[in-house]
Amino acid sequence: MADEELTETPETEDESEAYALDRKAVAAILYAVDTGDAEDLRQRMEPLHAADIADLLEQINAYDRGRLLRLYGREIDGEILSELDETLREEVISVLSPETLAEAVREMDSDDVVDLLEDLEDHQQEAILGHLEEPDRVAVQQSLTYPEYSAGRLMQREVVLAPEHWTVGEAIDYLRGEDDLPEQFYHVILVDPRHKPVANVTLGKIMGSPRTTPLKEITEDVFQVIPATQYEGDVAYAFNQYHLISAPVVDEDGRLVGMITIDDAMAVLDEEHEEDILRLAGVGEGSLSDRVISTTKRRFPWLAVNLVTAVLASLVIAQFEDAIATVVALAVLMPIVASMGGNAGTQSLTVAVRAIATKDLTGANVWRVIRRECLVGLVNGVIFAVVMGIVGLVWFGSPALGYVIAAAMVINLVVAGFAGTVIPVILDRIGVDPALASGAFVTTVTDVVGFFAFLGLAAAVLL
Amino acid sequence: MADEELTETPETEDESEAYALDRKAVAAILYAVDTGDAEDLRQRMEPLHAADIADLLEQINAYDRGRLLRLYGREIDGEILSELDETLREEVISVLSPETLAEAVREMDSDDVVDLLEDLEDHQQEAILGHLEEPDRVAVQQSLTYPEYSAGRLMQREVVLAPEHWTVGEAIDYLRGEDDLPEQFYHVILVDPRHKPVANVTLGKIMGSPRTTPLKEITEDVFQVIPATQYEGDVAYAFNQYHLISAPVVDEDGRLVGMITIDDAMAVLDEEHEEDILRLAGVGEGSLSDRVISTTKRRFPWLAVNLVTAVLASLVIAQFEDAIATVVALAVLMPIVASMGGNAGTQSLTVAVRAIATKDLTGANVWRVIRRECLVGLVNGVIFAVVMGIVGLVWFGSPALGYVIAAAMVINLVVAGFAGTVIPVILDRIGVDPALASGAFVTTVTDVVGFFAFLGLAAAVLL
Repeated sequence: MADEELTETPETEDESEAYALDRKAVAAILYAVDTGDAEDLRQRMEPLHAADIADLLEQINAYDRGRLLRLYGREIDGEILSELDETLREEVISVLSPETLAEAVREMDSDDVVDLLEDLEDHQQEAILGHLEEPDRVAVQQSLTYPEYSAGRLMQREVVLAPEHWTVGEAIDYLRGEDDLPEQFYHVILVDPRHKPVANVTLGKIMGSPRTTPLKEITEDVFQVIPATQYEGDVAYAFNQYHLISAPVVDEDGRLVGMITIDDAMAVLDEEHEEDILRLAGVGEGSLSDRVISTTKRRFPWLAVNLVTAVLASLVIAQFEDAIATVVALAVLMPIVASMGGNAGTQSLTVAVRAIATKDLTGANVWRVIRRECLVGLVNGVIFAVVMGIVGLVWFGSPALGYVIAAAMVINLVVAGFAGTVIPVILDRIGVDPALASGAFVTTVTDVVGFFAFLGLAAAVLL
Repeated sequence: MADEELTETPETEDESEAYALDRKAVAAILYAVDTGDAEDLRQRMEPLHAADIADLLEQINAYDRGRLLRLYGREIDGEILSELDETLREEVISVLSPETLAEAVREMDSDDVVDLLEDLEDHQQEAILGHLEEPDRVAVQQSLTYPEYSAGRLMQREVVLAPEHWTVGEAIDYLRGEDDLPEQFYHVILVDPRHKPVANVTLGKIMGSPRTTPLKEITEDVFQVIPATQYEGDVAYAFNQYHLISAPVVDEDGRLVGMITIDDAMAVLDEEHEEDILRLAGVGEGSLSDRVISTTKRRFPWLAVNLVTAVLASLVIAQFEDAIATVVALAVLMPIVASMGGNAGTQSLTVAVRAIATKDLTGANVWRVIRRECLVGLVNGVIFAVVMGIVGLVWFGSPALGYVIAAAMVINLVVAGFAGTVIPVILDRIGVDPALASGAFVTTVTDVVGFFAFLGLAAAVLL
């Protein structure tokens, strides 16, 4: 729309294929599947990152996927399983041999095993737990006792910690002497004698400081402790807000039970956004690889709600059948008022839902935002009222019709700004996700008000 | 809507206030501003993280913000400036004393200075560059030569690197001897003699390996080199897709020029999502602290486009004035068909826009997805056709009206599925952001097709 937004396009375009799966590579892989050449297939899959293999499995159709898995099944490892969309995991796991599956889960971090198990059926869960060694199984089972979508499910058990009174030298000697350090870690967590985390020290600071420096003197300024029961969306928010790289997770007594790293928080942030964007459009979660029936089922509820609201709007129209029969122009113009209100309402609504998600819409500014949205509706309403008044006059030659549509436009756009802000705020306060339900309410309001204002004024003025 | 989505609510609710600014704290801060008590204000701001101070400045009104800055101006540091929304930076910078500003920018990383400068006016840019020391100024100016929204703008100059032939011992001795290590770093980048990055080694691996181990043997499996001209959205995608923590940035000759860390990539991912979600709703970028006029201007273009499409739809209705004058029930029912089509189209569209953004909708599956969306439209269309056929029959006692609305519903929902997928795919291919423009096209199609199918069939069957 606006100029400044178009300036981005060239760059986006240049690089838009960066990191997308290469069409030719996919074609070559499918050819290897067609010819049943397992060795050729293995070689062509070799250079792909686990996340790209997961994407490939999601993008090809179910028939090709089945054949590919039969040829390539043994190479499926824990990383690919972690990257795979939930909807495909059961399908893929059911094709793997018990040995392949056992090997795959044994090499995974505890948080990834938990993530894998969550969405599986009981017998598949048990099979996987059975493949784990005793301490890992206990760790995974403990994580599963935390609620779904909590920090406790997201955290890994593997942490590196040190007593708060240690020096840099002691930390280095400990780290260099320890055989079993986690694959990825960036901080040493300092804990007090009761195992409560008190600070983070980065490995970079430990590397760069004299051996005699107490660890306490080189701790990070920003230190956030995450309760194990915290909602994962809030965890992601904290990482993004405070630029955390890793954060300790504690139980209700404040004792260290695990650690969350930023890459997992980033994945959650991405999922939360996906959820918001899809919910705003009335689409349940799912993936492109879902089949027609499951997709239809997910789309249906929102369309059913929309049908009810559309019928409500029709009931309003039905009250004015006589007016419409007399002046058919009303039927021609009335969808314009409703449509403009719906769009303006969706604009306000989206801004409000997004501001609630980023914790930018609070008690401190909610009234100011509501007032602003109403004023924006008023200004745009007046502009479009003038335009539509002229259109009404020129098209149908009736000044009265012009006044009526102009007045209805102003009313509906102000109401749109008000409803678009107030409805998500109220839903949030009563504990309903505003992204999920606001759309239906707001468009009901703008449809009903739009038709009622336009037809009601017309009936009063024109008849 | 669906049951599984409601199960989340309790947890979300419990923690929904986590990390949000505390209402009482904000009130106490505003009270200190009212009484002009600078010392009290300083004490109350003290515990807040820079990001929260930035949020506070965004949430209070312009008058309070001005008074707060006059009392607290000297305490504004580089971190707060980096966290501040672009729209407020100029305002805040213009109140700071030159000394405060100079001190603030000197303590910032080069990437944050670049981020700060980008959106300022020329005279403010020069003032800030003037405060930097020579080498920093050159680094910032070089970064500014890269295009906006590119990896070159996002990267920091400060990197830690080592020749590829070094051992763990050599790396440790170098790191422990170096005075000027960056504040935050997690990897040592190995470079070849021509300064091209060849691998990453984590500090954890260096800590945990014997001194004689060559660094080459403990490099990370996943290693992505980012071209300095790459679009920042693709950079964020790569970090999320491949779980990168930091990645080297190279110039066109492949030589190392900087490094991007995951916290910056996460911030970009967040912004990209914000952009997508706002563009889908026809709202330009902006912030809650914007004034009425700038907000009105940003909302206007989309509403203007919507007015044109609504008038187009009205022109279709106008073709059938005679039919409507004869059977007024048509005017009552026609918005239902259009509204259902618009909603179904928005569902398909949102899924497609999102899948394009995550690189999940590619040449490999585009036809399958289009077919699926049309089939989903067909199945839902048939269900709602039956419902609306019955409603039409019962409400208006006319079987023919029931058949007509049923047929129009099926047609419009199939078209919605098709248009909702094809339009964003085509826009993406020709280099237009599908999130920006698809909505207008898709609802035009569903409005026009909906009114035309319903009124056309009615005219043919009923008159």
